[in-house]
Amino acid sequence: VVQLRHQELLCINITYFFLNFSFFFIKCFIIKSKKPKVTFPTYSGKFTQLPHLAGTEQNLRYAEQIKKEWMEFGLDSVEMVPYDVLLSYPNKSEPNYISIIDQLGNEVFNTSLAEPVPEGYENVSNIVPPYSAFSAKGQPEGDLVYVNYGRTEDFFQLQREMNINVTGKIVIVRYGKIFRGNKVKNAMLAGAKGIIMFSDPADYWAADVQPYPDGWNLPGGGAQRGNVLNLNGAGDPLTPGYPAKDYTYRFSLEDGVGLPKIPVHPIGFHDAVNLLKNMGGQIPPNNWKGALNVSYRIGPGFELKVRMNIHTDNQVTRIYNVIGRIRGALEPDRYVILGGHRDAWVFGGIDPMSGAAVVHETVRSAGKLLSKGWRPRRTIIFASWDAEEFGLVGSTEWAEDNTKLLQERAVAYINADSAIEGMYTLRVDCTPSLHTLVYDLTKQIASPEDGEEGVSLYESWHKRDNWTNDRDAPRISKLGSGSDFEAYFIRLGIAAGRARYTKNKKTERYSSYPVYHSVYETFEIVEKFYDPSFKRLQAVAQVRGGLIFLLADSQLLPLDVNQYADSLRKYAQSITQLAQKHPEEMKMYEVSFDSLFSAVENFTVAARDLHECLQTLDRADPLQVRIMNDQLMYLERAFIDPLGLPGRPFYRHVIFAPSSHNKYAGESFPGIYDALFDIQNSADPEKAWEEVKRQISIAAFTVHAAAMTLTPPA
Amino acid sequence: VVQLRHQELLCINITYFFLNFSFFFIKCFIIKSKKPKVTFPTYSGKFTQLPHLAGTEQNLRYAEQIKKEWMEFGLDSVEMVPYDVLLSYPNKSEPNYISIIDQLGNEVFNTSLAEPVPEGYENVSNIVPPYSAFSAKGQPEGDLVYVNYGRTEDFFQLQREMNINVTGKIVIVRYGKIFRGNKVKNAMLAGAKGIIMFSDPADYWAADVQPYPDGWNLPGGGAQRGNVLNLNGAGDPLTPGYPAKDYTYRFSLEDGVGLPKIPVHPIGFHDAVNLLKNMGGQIPPNNWKGALNVSYRIGPGFELKVRMNIHTDNQVTRIYNVIGRIRGALEPDRYVILGGHRDAWVFGGIDPMSGAAVVHETVRSAGKLLSKGWRPRRTIIFASWDAEEFGLVGSTEWAEDNTKLLQERAVAYINADSAIEGMYTLRVDCTPSLHTLVYDLTKQIASPEDGEEGVSLYESWHKRDNWTNDRDAPRISKLGSGSDFEAYFIRLGIAAGRARYTKNKKTERYSSYPVYHSVYETFEIVEKFYDPSFKRLQAVAQVRGGLIFLLADSQLLPLDVNQYADSLRKYAQSITQLAQKHPEEMKMYEVSFDSLFSAVENFTVAARDLHECLQTLDRADPLQVRIMNDQLMYLERAFIDPLGLPGRPFYRHVIFAPSSHNKYAGESFPGIYDALFDIQNSADPEKAWEEVKRQISIAAFTVHAAAMTLTPPA
Repeated sequence: VVQLRHQELLCINITYFFLNFSFFFIKCFIIKSKKPKVTFPTYSGKFTQLPHLAGTEQNLRYAEQIKKEWMEFGLDSVEMVPYDVLLSYPNKSEPNYISIIDQLGNEVFNTSLAEPVPEGYENVSNIVPPYSAFSAKGQPEGDLVYVNYGRTEDFFQLQREMNINVTGKIVIVRYGKIFRGNKVKNAMLAGAKGIIMFSDPADYWAADVQPYPDGWNLPGGGAQRGNVLNLNGAGDPLTPGYPAKDYTYRFSLEDGVGLPKIPVHPIGFHDAVNLLKNMGGQIPPNNWKGALNVSYRIGPGFELKVRMNIHTDNQVTRIYNVIGRIRGALEPDRYVILGGHRDAWVFGGIDPMSGAAVVHETVRSAGKLLSKGWRPRRTIIFASWDAEEFGLVGSTEWAEDNTKLLQERAVAYINADSAIEGMYTLRVDCTPSLHTLVYDLTKQIASPEDGEEGVSLYESWHKRDNWTNDRDAPRISKLGSGSDFEAYFIRLGIAAGRARYTKNKKTERYSSYPVYHSVYETFEIVEKFYDPSFKRLQAVAQVRGGLIFLLADSQLLPLDVNQYADSLRKYAQSITQLAQKHPEEMKMYEVSFDSLFSAVENFTVAARDLHECLQTLDRADPLQVRIMNDQLMYLERAFIDPLGLPGRPFYRHVIFAPSSHNKYAGESFPGIYDALFDIQNSADPEKAWEEVKRQISIAAFTVHAAAMTLTPPA
Repeated sequence: VVQLRHQELLCINITYFFLNFSFFFIKCFIIKSKKPKVTFPTYSGKFTQLPHLAGTEQNLRYAEQIKKEWMEFGLDSVEMVPYDVLLSYPNKSEPNYISIIDQLGNEVFNTSLAEPVPEGYENVSNIVPPYSAFSAKGQPEGDLVYVNYGRTEDFFQLQREMNINVTGKIVIVRYGKIFRGNKVKNAMLAGAKGIIMFSDPADYWAADVQPYPDGWNLPGGGAQRGNVLNLNGAGDPLTPGYPAKDYTYRFSLEDGVGLPKIPVHPIGFHDAVNLLKNMGGQIPPNNWKGALNVSYRIGPGFELKVRMNIHTDNQVTRIYNVIGRIRGALEPDRYVILGGHRDAWVFGGIDPMSGAAVVHETVRSAGKLLSKGWRPRRTIIFASWDAEEFGLVGSTEWAEDNTKLLQERAVAYINADSAIEGMYTLRVDCTPSLHTLVYDLTKQIASPEDGEEGVSLYESWHKRDNWTNDRDAPRISKLGSGSDFEAYFIRLGIAAGRARYTKNKKTERYSSYPVYHSVYETFEIVEKFYDPSFKRLQAVAQVRGGLIFLLADSQLLPLDVNQYADSLRKYAQSITQLAQKHPEEMKMYEVSFDSLFSAVENFTVAARDLHECLQTLDRADPLQVRIMNDQLMYLERAFIDPLGLPGRPFYRHVIFAPSSHNKYAGESFPGIYDALFDIQNSADPEKAWEEVKRQISIAAFTVHAAAMTLTPPA
């Protein structure tokens, strides 16, 4: 067996070890970077040519192909793991569309039934037309009300400032700012009987960019698919909390979690303009290329009557995760997971195959190392998830299936969804204890940008996105949700992170990227526009793969608990500031954050002491090393409250949760945040402030308890 | 350092190792057995002379004394851990009593305000009179209805067969058969406005035994104190889920968990006869010495009007656990816990001091070993819990406080409540994986019975209480609740067990023991009647202490997973038989237990394979040993479902829970059991059977997932 155990030779200085090992690993990628297309051969050739929606035969074929190739690459085992979950498809014989109707109910305008197919894909079958997965069926008719982005604050403005009631009406909102499921929930809560979503050029057109295929903007006939669930982490709507296996009890559709009760449909802006220009109120300008300042367009007249025609069917469908493993040499019962989804709305040129290629390439790279005699200290698990687009279903079912194992054994989960959503710089969202590792690692990776030879990814990123005034380092954000790390991080408390290449947030206002979830997400849009040299994808692969390799093979886990302390302090300050907007109530109801700050202080001291202990640890003693690693690994678990957040039993992380108003965004101290939200309009202020106090108490306890896990174990 | 590490010398044959080490440890006790009173000096002298109710100064003094002595015995650390929890005391200026009232409302008979104090204790102050802790305050008046034991089936019989409605009436029930809190709950559900409980000689008199002090029967003026909560594992009623610290949010009394909404009071049978003989219906015979066959006495006339006068106050009160530690030499982050409560209703002669003495003696014994250079492989934690009598509060708050640590690190919890409740033989309730250890250990302990020299405790026990027809071994029962192991086992999934000396169940029908929770529970009742030679207590000490020492110091954890497989199969068969009482419904609603049996089969195979792996384990490899031990330790954790049982969020063990109808009893597959309960009378049979199917699915998943934790870890 070839000896590549750097950590056993270089165990004195942890940083030094990282440098060396990262360099070694990254070289594996760099060598191949001379032929970038060869680096991602499966990406360009095999996995983006055909639509592979979850639950379709083509997506199963891709799964089988991935399984076969992972075995050939040399993994110890690869298995297909099926679940039978609720998916949702348009009815092939009755298409979905929206009509403008006249006073006799005649349809005087109908929205298009499909997107114009891009050149080269004309003969492809099985392209699913734009739809909102899990929409209720129905043909509601009614006045159309425009509600901006459909955010909580948009509905508040409509109802409170403009006194417009949408009960029994159909609402139209533009995509962007928040997760579409939250828009649907808001519409339902407001009493709407249907909701239409459209991609507004103001949000989905980059300046001075042509629509695809001449550029990477969304054509007027394109529309954004997507699920409109409010699962709150439940996975398959019919089997919340348990894996959707053959014997598993399934709720009826009526009792399913998060299924909207009203019809929902997405349209492109060529169709949207026909609805909007016929509405009362402000008529939008015809020049759709320019960004519409539509913020004042809230509130309409109701001259326009529309009918939604929605026939989408829910059906229990078999999905397949592909799970590959490399058995750990010394600690096979410690798992480091790299997972990303495989299912795509159509071709998945960006989402998810730019990420799936990274997983594939990491497997290939690991296989090469294995063939040279290397074997990581810990077990590495690679996952190709299914049905992410239908509510993170494949990854959540597997987390449910393996929940006992993951709770005891999982070290970290790194997510590998779309690797690129822009051409500007790196974007990382991760748990605070991974910050230092991300910085150390990116210092060892080359910038992929032209003209930055000899510049590290860290420097390139730092220059473009400095954190804040109070910290001179590249920005790292909180994890929100909207991808497969959710169950691992938010439900199970496994340290998690994600990395991708992104746009310049300061100048590019659109959500994700213009062609997101449209038929125009092809391999060519990446090859022509996003990353012609494939260097950006390579850099992202180096970050994701580097994290996995370092987490799996370092003798001591490269988790920095001091960073968690810093973050907790910031979050505590920030939530306190929010509460202090109500100084009188805080006094009246005796609301204090002292216990939380005291807990953060305990945590800070314990974290510092732990890192001091690590300095003097006898690394030759395998039990002592394991004990310290267990403390590091289980820290994230200590933030899990089995009781969950109020009304969200599967969101159990007390420090982080997806925002209740936007699943994509991460909220810190979410229990306190939600208790404070809109508290000035509470019907029962005393009860509302009692709930704030209760949530502060839970947060303080949890942080304090987490601090206890960092102190010497007996 | 003296080398006493038998496990390092004798690591070839696990059974052989146990024998030797047990023998060594047990000798420590046996040497001292020559002077039995010296063996338990603190028991006879110091800790049973004064009342030490939870929350009183005397109980704090005892805590301080225990702390001091444990330090002197040589523990590494001992700390007092306070919590501020809801307790309940009679109002000193307004005593509680029950009156018979005439038609004008005059009180024509009042029950006694206190028990006659036993000889020798006449000058003792602070004896709390018999009361029902957490009773609601109030002075309800009404007809008195006798409802036998107040069990679910007793109320069913009253309501369904006799058509008697107790709404707005006061019920009187006899103690016994089930936990008193369940009686209160049943009375509330039936609409009663108050409930009186009495100790019937039929249940609390042993044949041919005199009342104390001439024998160990309950005098007619004695009554059973006790809390009447329905906490379902919540601990302090105002802080469910979180430790009751200074900063902790407290619910209002109205929102507190499990507090009865009606007045409750216990009386002795001298008082009870005055109520019963004046009721309509069957008049009980005057000969209270003989066992009354009162089963036919359900259903009364309502000629008797009574008034309850209850002024008991709830108040948040400081309690103190004493926590002592011996740091583990090799695995300080693995905890073996011996805990028992200290608080007593009055003197606690049996409950709990016969158990607290065992803890004390085990600490002293461990201290002696420490002084000779011994140190256990794992950390041992000794606990003197407070406020057990008020709902397992001290132990539950500490479990909540340390929940993150315990989840990751606790190997086992051994309970040390009353060590003796009879004079017949050993009684053990424990998790199945401890069965083998209990058998192995008791074979090394001498029988305490006269005339059994040279006979082992195992043989003595086996002879008196053989398991069943299908297994030739002493009976071991399921854990129910009613003592401090509850939070550790049922909420956290830590392997747990308890052992005590017990009565002959076949001939002695009373619950616990006649003087239970009365002022007559003195040291003298043990010394004169229960265990004059103190050999029985010594045997119990050897069992409890032996379990702790073996769990803490064995290189491989002495947990037998095959036994769990056997038990799961029995439980699955038994719950299936229960369902099969409804063959038509099972067919109609397609109810099948196949998935559960299939999971049990998986578990059985995985358990067998694990034990085979243990045979060939390289015991010189500390990481491999740790990995196997982790699998053994975390097995119990795998049965925990964070979602909890329906309506009982703190009962999270899928295999075991306290019965919904009797907290004292353990129910296997409680989710399925409760779904099946009284299903023939369900208002919506389809929905009821759907719930049965859902619960079977959860049980099957959980057993299957637990089996996965036993397979090789990668």
